[in-house]
Amino acid sequence: MAWARWGSHPWLVLLCVYAWGHPKSLDQREDVRNCAISPPYLPVTAVNTTAQLTALRQQMYIHNLSAYIVPDTDAHMSEYIGEYDQRRAWITGFTGSAGVAVVTMGKASLWTDSRYWTQAERQMDCNWELHKEVGTTPIVTWLLTEIPVGARVGVDPFLFSINSWESYAKALQVSDRELLSIPVNLVDLVWGSERPPVPSEPIYALQEAFTGSTWQEKVAGIRSQMQKHLEAPTAVLLSALDETAWLFNLRGSDIPYNPFFYSYTLLTDSSIRLFANKSRFSSETLQYLNSGCTGPLCVQVEDYSQVSGSVQAYASGDVKIWIGTSYTSYGLYELIPKEKLIEDTYSPVMVTKAVKNSKEQTLLRASHVRDAVAVIRYLVWLEKNVPQGTVDEFSGAEQLEKFRGEEEFFSGSSFETISASGLNAALAHYSPTRELHRKLSSDEIYLLDSGGQYWDGTTDVTRTVHWGTPSAFQKEAYTRVLIGNIDLSRLVFPAATSGRMVEAFARKALWDVGLNYGHGTGHGIGNFLCVHEWPVGFQSSNIAMAKGMFTSIEPGYYLDGEFGIRLEDVALVVEAKTKYPGTYLTFEVVSLVPYDRNLIDVSLLSSEQLQYLNRYYQIIREKVGPELQRRQLQEEFSWLQRHTEPLTARAGPTTSLAPLVTVSALAILGWSV
Amino acid sequence: MAWARWGSHPWLVLLCVYAWGHPKSLDQREDVRNCAISPPYLPVTAVNTTAQLTALRQQMYIHNLSAYIVPDTDAHMSEYIGEYDQRRAWITGFTGSAGVAVVTMGKASLWTDSRYWTQAERQMDCNWELHKEVGTTPIVTWLLTEIPVGARVGVDPFLFSINSWESYAKALQVSDRELLSIPVNLVDLVWGSERPPVPSEPIYALQEAFTGSTWQEKVAGIRSQMQKHLEAPTAVLLSALDETAWLFNLRGSDIPYNPFFYSYTLLTDSSIRLFANKSRFSSETLQYLNSGCTGPLCVQVEDYSQVSGSVQAYASGDVKIWIGTSYTSYGLYELIPKEKLIEDTYSPVMVTKAVKNSKEQTLLRASHVRDAVAVIRYLVWLEKNVPQGTVDEFSGAEQLEKFRGEEEFFSGSSFETISASGLNAALAHYSPTRELHRKLSSDEIYLLDSGGQYWDGTTDVTRTVHWGTPSAFQKEAYTRVLIGNIDLSRLVFPAATSGRMVEAFARKALWDVGLNYGHGTGHGIGNFLCVHEWPVGFQSSNIAMAKGMFTSIEPGYYLDGEFGIRLEDVALVVEAKTKYPGTYLTFEVVSLVPYDRNLIDVSLLSSEQLQYLNRYYQIIREKVGPELQRRQLQEEFSWLQRHTEPLTARAGPTTSLAPLVTVSALAILGWSV
Repeated sequence: MAWARWGSHPWLVLLCVYAWGHPKSLDQREDVRNCAISPPYLPVTAVNTTAQLTALRQQMYIHNLSAYIVPDTDAHMSEYIGEYDQRRAWITGFTGSAGVAVVTMGKASLWTDSRYWTQAERQMDCNWELHKEVGTTPIVTWLLTEIPVGARVGVDPFLFSINSWESYAKALQVSDRELLSIPVNLVDLVWGSERPPVPSEPIYALQEAFTGSTWQEKVAGIRSQMQKHLEAPTAVLLSALDETAWLFNLRGSDIPYNPFFYSYTLLTDSSIRLFANKSRFSSETLQYLNSGCTGPLCVQVEDYSQVSGSVQAYASGDVKIWIGTSYTSYGLYELIPKEKLIEDTYSPVMVTKAVKNSKEQTLLRASHVRDAVAVIRYLVWLEKNVPQGTVDEFSGAEQLEKFRGEEEFFSGSSFETISASGLNAALAHYSPTRELHRKLSSDEIYLLDSGGQYWDGTTDVTRTVHWGTPSAFQKEAYTRVLIGNIDLSRLVFPAATSGRMVEAFARKALWDVGLNYGHGTGHGIGNFLCVHEWPVGFQSSNIAMAKGMFTSIEPGYYLDGEFGIRLEDVALVVEAKTKYPGTYLTFEVVSLVPYDRNLIDVSLLSSEQLQYLNRYYQIIREKVGPELQRRQLQEEFSWLQRHTEPLTARAGPTTSLAPLVTVSALAILGWSV
Repeated sequence: MAWARWGSHPWLVLLCVYAWGHPKSLDQREDVRNCAISPPYLPVTAVNTTAQLTALRQQMYIHNLSAYIVPDTDAHMSEYIGEYDQRRAWITGFTGSAGVAVVTMGKASLWTDSRYWTQAERQMDCNWELHKEVGTTPIVTWLLTEIPVGARVGVDPFLFSINSWESYAKALQVSDRELLSIPVNLVDLVWGSERPPVPSEPIYALQEAFTGSTWQEKVAGIRSQMQKHLEAPTAVLLSALDETAWLFNLRGSDIPYNPFFYSYTLLTDSSIRLFANKSRFSSETLQYLNSGCTGPLCVQVEDYSQVSGSVQAYASGDVKIWIGTSYTSYGLYELIPKEKLIEDTYSPVMVTKAVKNSKEQTLLRASHVRDAVAVIRYLVWLEKNVPQGTVDEFSGAEQLEKFRGEEEFFSGSSFETISASGLNAALAHYSPTRELHRKLSSDEIYLLDSGGQYWDGTTDVTRTVHWGTPSAFQKEAYTRVLIGNIDLSRLVFPAATSGRMVEAFARKALWDVGLNYGHGTGHGIGNFLCVHEWPVGFQSSNIAMAKGMFTSIEPGYYLDGEFGIRLEDVALVVEAKTKYPGTYLTFEVVSLVPYDRNLIDVSLLSSEQLQYLNRYYQIIREKVGPELQRRQLQEEFSWLQRHTEPLTARAGPTTSLAPLVTVSALAILGWSV
């Protein structure tokens, strides 16, 4: 997995009530602030935010606001956000990916979850209070004690999802405070020249070899869904960055780990408007988009900043606009009269994109073969270098990126690599840095969760290894996680079953003995798109499973302060052959990296699980073996053969009995055996 | 299971897209109407509704309505409704439990699901159109073709849940029609003297021996939850009939199969108002309720009809009223200003009632022992009488009720017995009648789903039997259903897991071979309360599992036109002992009737499943055996011993290998074996 944002990725919420270590007393430490003494102690990492707070409060005064909320997202509810959108980081000094800031005339507060508490204490100065909670309720509860009845709380409506806006608005309203939509962002007003520039890198079209359909075919498909819809939408409004990227087969580099560009699309029954900076398109790309005309298959490129005006103008006509409510900003939503909206959780683009056609499936599979080569090369390299004591979590991650970089069509990591040794592996969101990391050791478990962006597909795979002698408990926990992965992967279930209904099969082997994990069991993944691609997965907010979807399957187990285990594969939803006729589905794993034999207790596996595992190993040999040979990676090929040897059930009393008895009988006969 | 209402019991919705037989052409049949010929053909069972429709349309004219909707529920969203509330049956002639009628000035239409299509064609005259669909959408779609823009559609807001009202209101509003709340019911106005009288049977207090806590303790518990609530409710408004019955330990007989009485309760921080007909309470019961005073522990009995006025008056003060939105009527809801409402899906009474305390658990268990005696007596009786050809589905059900009637504390069936032979067992809602039933046969599968109301508990159990030679497929299907029941029953899962997350364990053995069932997997059950007690169960609308809850577990399999299988037990949620510490739960089955050995293919069971089954049989022997002996039911005792003999795994190749080889070896030695 990679670790997702709070707002848009509720599948990880569970995880964050799970313990990531008990923070120790921070009083005597030099790396964190101490605001309790006078003068306060500030580490060198703390950022002085007095000037920006003063400037922001001036703006708040002008707008007659008692409080201003600065969330951690962008106008597209993106999982990762660009430098340009790091408003919360700039105003607080705290750079963690999750955290909401609220500024009143007298106070400034940050709410974040446990994985970021220490980082916040290192980066914030004493202008800021740290609140160790998340969600709307604690923020509103605090606001009610800080601002009087009748007070106005301002927000940039483009940084709030519809749900998030409504939950703040309702909670404030019942307590006689008012949430105010201020379309100009007050932090941007005071950020000034310090603010990183608007991204201006080229926006480019994918080569045809890497696309499943032409954009014209995709547009026709969405329009056909509009025509069939009972409420007769006249347009679909696309807000998520991967919606526009997918629809036009366009890519950019505005967002870390995601090949996206800032954009919106208003696809109507007779026109296509793409909102993005026109100067970023080459003339070839503009031609590819038919941008010179105004017909139903001509893409009119309008400036990104014009989206509000254009949507509002369009909404003034006799129209019906179809939106995905889970990621459309309140800023756009409030521009459209309610009776002109068709509100679904996900737009038809999001739902269509979730099912990959056969070409997209072939592309995604191919990227996983090459990705397996990179990960296997890394595992071989670790096996040689870890015992020398020369590898740490950070240098390891760099080495892996080097190997991935040598693979064809590679275009960067799909998320920040989780390379975690020993007790760090129990911290589900851990990533090492150049400054802070742990040495890898043959005596510790090592957890690697990483993925690549390739022109043909996005990958995400987790393996957990131990090069020494794992404890019996580590082997048991690892094997139970593996059983969970196997049991969900081989499950046969009716078409249109929701992931939520089956994800417990990944947990049962752990539950049996009183173990569990505190995160979701999987997420969709794209073709050179999001590594966490909505709306596929095992959460209640995900749509039903269908043939052609890809999802990760990733059970784990974490022992706070000790070690962590996760085994993650990407799997394709395929038709299952059943004894009796019916439309049934199952998974076909497309990640192709062997598990660690050193951590498997074969005696815990049923014969069906063992058979499944050996069949999977056979597939790895068939798919990755030739690729390693073609590349003359002989050492890796031998490693692969060794690590995919069929596993055999430990000789138990029933299976061993026959030969034993025979031997005894022969011995009785005095024969030499 | 018993079969529930559409609106309030979505766990059965799935079932009704499942096929219950393809209706044959009705043209030449004499038992159904034919409105296509002139004059129309009407069977004797059809009801002439011309007069009531004329009268209703006069009322609609007075109220300036273009349409009037007559739903199938009562003001408490009850699962079963009393005669007094059968408005839809009276206006249409159709007496089925589910179906919505809509009358316009020119047309009259009924919407119902497939199990009732034939019945509707038998009972309705040609004033009525039959629509073979369910849900708001088809009704609204039809309305839009029948009534002009600007037209008003009237409803009695007390017969609509909040959700149901809002879905009609929204759908009509976007098409420029208006849904109008008319607090006086127009059908009641024209029903006149034909209408059954308001129930007037006594409302009585349960003996202390049959209650888990006194009503004063329950009131204190709910008030304590009010005090702890962040939004500081000043009152809880109870609309569901079992809420009031549970809170005061009162029972009545207004509703079939449910010991309830028409009532509401407004429990405030300083007063208790019970809305019910005062003349129905004896002076002892009024004393029991402290109805003579006005303090916080005095129950002021107000007339049932005063609830609207009293709630409205109370809501005019500085108050906050906590309601369960899933069963509060829109009629009450619209009386309370939004800012004075605290809306949860279920009221604190509903949620508290879901967890039985130890006395309630003991009571419920005891009722299940006696219920098992009755069911076992019936199964023994069937085993003797079915081969004689003297038993039919209806007479069987009567015999069962006779046996239950001989059990202590019996107070009637908890729902209409499903006694279904052969292909009728594939009809999930089937119940035989005196006129229409099938003879039981040793050549057919027989499905019995039934339950009793006892003063100490409500029961619900399903067994499927075959007295002859079942087919291999019947045995396989039965065994897979049994495996599903076993696997869910023995599942160990973390505290607070939702039923939805684990119900697929009851389906997996069927899914494995391409089979499934189209209904929910279980529901809560009460102590002499609802047989389907919300909010416990395995649907997404159910609350998380907690120690002390009771739920049914009831997988099944149905082959249309051939046979049906269901195995239903009631189980208590208990703490599980796990190898590693943690708060884990599992189920303890309290239904105590053996499964049919004749239908079990032991070779399909794993050794763990077999072990579980034999342990369950041991428990049945320990709990029911002594009761049979005490009652000198010797024949039943012998039957029980026979039917709970431990099952043994069929000798497979591995287990038989050793003796074989030994024999061979000994043979080699020339020893006689």
